[in-house]
Amino acid sequence: MRVAGQIIGKEVIDSSGMIAGKVKDIDVNLDNNEIEGIILGKGGISEILGLSKEENVIPYIMVKQIGDKILLKENIDEPIL
Amino acid sequence: MRVAGQIIGKEVIDSSGMIAGKVKDIDVNLDNNEIEGIILGKGGISEILGLSKEENVIPYIMVKQIGDKILLKENIDEPIL
Repeated sequence: MRVAGQIIGKEVIDSSGMIAGKVKDIDVNLDNNEIEGIILGKGGISEILGLSKEENVIPYIMVKQIGDKILLKENIDEPIL
Repeated sequence: MRVAGQIIGKEVIDSSGMIAGKVKDIDVNLDNNEIEGIILGKGGISEILGLSKEENVIPYIMVKQIGDKILLKENIDEPIL
């Protein structure tokens, strides 16, 4: 799946069905060649204008499914390495 | 390292010192959480206008270093899994 073409911009939905945000970027670890996390933008006009740098980073281990939407797990079932 | 913020747009240089292209996207395998390849755009006005879909896919195993530029290996030293 392509990061820019297919993942960035997707809505992220938490386990309560609430919108957590939209994917703004993906953080990768180039040493071990793994996806580490997804960066969520908070959205809004301040972000479009580049005035706000506010963002959330979600560890990739919290991702349950990536489809039309990205679904998050309720809990981290496995320890973060 | 961030895909959209830090990797996309970087120039890719082959082992002869020639410009192979610029990173257009990153292909990730969401099943095993690994980076599979980098997508190079061919550049030019046709790509900017969206008229050309031409692109090269380079297996991630061919990447030697990612710095200001992305350097490619001369050969694939390890077998592709």
